[in-house]
Amino acid sequence: MSGESLNGYYFEDLSVGQSAIFGKTVTEADIVAFAGVSGDFNPVHLNEEWAKETRFKGRIAHGMLSAAYISNVLGMKLPGPGSIYVSQMLKFKAPVRIGDTVVTRVEVTSLVPDKKFAVIKTTCSVGGKAVIEGEATMLVPSKP
Amino acid sequence: MSGESLNGYYFEDLSVGQSAIFGKTVTEADIVAFAGVSGDFNPVHLNEEWAKETRFKGRIAHGMLSAAYISNVLGMKLPGPGSIYVSQMLKFKAPVRIGDTVVTRVEVTSLVPDKKFAVIKTTCSVGGKAVIEGEATMLVPSKP
Amino acid sequence: MSGESLNGYYFEDLSVGQSAIFGKTVTEADIVAFAGVSGDFNPVHLNEEWAKETRFKGRIAHGMLSAAYISNVLGMKLPGPGSIYVSQMLKFKAPVRIGDTVVTRVEVTSLVPDKKFAVIKTTCSVGGKAVIEGEATMLVPSKP
Amino acid sequence: MSGESLNGYYFEDLSVGQSAIFGKTVTEADIVAFAGVSGDFNPVHLNEEWAKETRFKGRIAHGMLSAAYISNVLGMKLPGPGSIYVSQMLKFKAPVRIGDTVVTRVEVTSLVPDKKFAVIKTTCSVGGKAVIEGEATMLVPSKP
Repeated sequence: MSGESLNGYYFEDLSVGQSAIFGKTVTEADIVAFAGVSGDFNPVHLNEEWAKETRFKGRIAHGMLSAAYISNVLGMKLPGPGSIYVSQMLKFKAPVRIGDTVVTRVEVTSLVPDKKFAVIKTTCSVGGKAVIEGEATMLVPSKP
Repeated sequence: MSGESLNGYYFEDLSVGQSAIFGKTVTEADIVAFAGVSGDFNPVHLNEEWAKETRFKGRIAHGMLSAAYISNVLGMKLPGPGSIYVSQMLKFKAPVRIGDTVVTRVEVTSLVPDKKFAVIKTTCSVGGKAVIEGEATMLVPSKP
Repeated sequence: MSGESLNGYYFEDLSVGQSAIFGKTVTEADIVAFAGVSGDFNPVHLNEEWAKETRFKGRIAHGMLSAAYISNVLGMKLPGPGSIYVSQMLKFKAPVRIGDTVVTRVEVTSLVPDKKFAVIKTTCSVGGKAVIEGEATMLVPSKP
Repeated sequence: MSGESLNGYYFEDLSVGQSAIFGKTVTEADIVAFAGVSGDFNPVHLNEEWAKETRFKGRIAHGMLSAAYISNVLGMKLPGPGSIYVSQMLKFKAPVRIGDTVVTRVEVTSLVPDKKFAVIKTTCSVGGKAVIEGEATMLVPSKP
C-alpha cells in the first residue's frame, strides 16, 4: 500500500492480527443525513418526543451508520481498495447516541489462501464498550 | 399498526410469511451523500477512472447503502417502530450501479415466542436478481 | 453591478480600498457537511475524543471551509461573477471552533491594468482576531 | 503510522520525495453540496444558462472544492493527523467540470528541522493536466 497507489493490501501482504481503526463523533447532523440517504425515518432516530418514551430515553443513531464505518475501514484501510466485500455479520449490542464517539476497529482473524478470503473481526465501540460486534469476509486480490 | 399510532406490529400480530418492500433508484447523488456521512471514499464508489479499471468497469454503490434500505423496511414497516435490531447477516452477491432500482424485501421466516424474536429474510434485488441476501433478527414488543 | 444583472464589477469599476464582507456562524452541521463533500475526515475535525487530546482541546473546523468563504465573497460580491480566480495565498493563524462566527473580508489592495488583475487582501476573523490571512489575485473582465 | 493509531507521520519519519494521492470524480451533487456549505452560489458554478455564456461554456466546480481535496490528503495521509496546516498557496490553472476525475497529489519537497516544517508540493490534475498547482507548509510533531 504505497503512498502513490490507491490500491490497498494484496492477499500476500496480510497476516493474522493486522488491524486498523476509524473514529467519528456522531452528531445530530449525521443522523439527519443518514435518514435522508437511506429513507430510514424510524421515529427512534428522528422523533425525540416519541424516542424519549422508549427504553432508549431519546433518539439513537441508525445501527447501519456504524456499520457504514466498518465498510469505511475495510474498504479504505484494511484490506483497502481493490478488495471485494463478500459478507458481513452484525450483532447490535448497545445504542449509539448523539455525541458518542464511535471507534471502529477491524482485525484480521484468519486467512483462506485458496479462496483469497480474509476473515476480519469488526467491532464498533463507544467508551470502550462494544456497540456492534461482527465479522466480515473480504476477497482480496493477489499480487500481480 | 393503526394509522394514528407510530408504533409498528406487536409480536402477537406477526406471522410467518408476512412481508414488506421498499424500492429506491440509486443516483449518483445518493452515493455522494452516503460517502459523505460514512467517510467511505473508497475509489470504487467515487473515482470513475480508477473504478473503470476494476472488475466492475465503473463506480458502484456502497453495499451498506442497500443494507440501510433493509434497516428502513424493518424499522418503518415490518416489524416497524418499537422493534429492536438484534442482528443482521449480509451476503453481498452483486454490485449496484448508478441508475439501478433496488427493491428491498423482508419476510418473516420464523418466530421465537419465548424471546419475542422475529427472524426475517432480507433481500435486496435489482431487476429481479439478488444483490444482497441476508437475515435479520428483531426483538418485537408484546401487546401491552 | 446593476441589480438586474448577475455580472460583478468590471475592471474599470474597481479602485484600491474597495471592500466587501460575509459572515457565517460555523455549526457542527457545517463541519459534518464539509467533511462529506471533501472526504476530509481528519479526526481533528470529526473525532471529539481524539481532538480533545490535541493542542486544540476539541474539534476545529476545516481551514478550507473558511477559505471557501473567501471564494464566496470574491466570486459573489467583489469583484463578483465574471471574474476569474488566478491564485490564493492562505496563512492559517488560529483555529475556528463550533459556534464561532467567521467574518470574511476582502479589500482591493492593487490593480494591474495591463493584465486586468485585481490584487485583494483576504482576511477571515473571529471576534476581531485573524484566523486566516491571505491574498487573492483575480482576473477581472473589462467593460464591453 | 501504524494501523492501530489515528496519528500520522512524525517529523522524523518524513523524507523528501514521499508522496500520497487521492482521486475523486466531481459530480453535480458535489457542486451543489459545496455551494450549500460555503454559501458560494456564484452562477459560474450553479447557473447553467449563465455559465454557458462564459469562457467556460458551462458550469465549473468551485476551485476551493479541489483545494479541499488537498487538505484531505495532507490531513489524512501525508503528513496525516496531528500535523498543523501553516499555509497553502494555490494557483488555479484550469477549470474542473462535472464528470472530471480530480487526482490530488502531495509530495514532500523540503524539510525544515528547526521549525518542524514540511514543505509540500500540492497538485490537482484532471487527465494528467494540472488544474491547481501549489505549495503547503505543515508543522509536523516530533517523535515523543
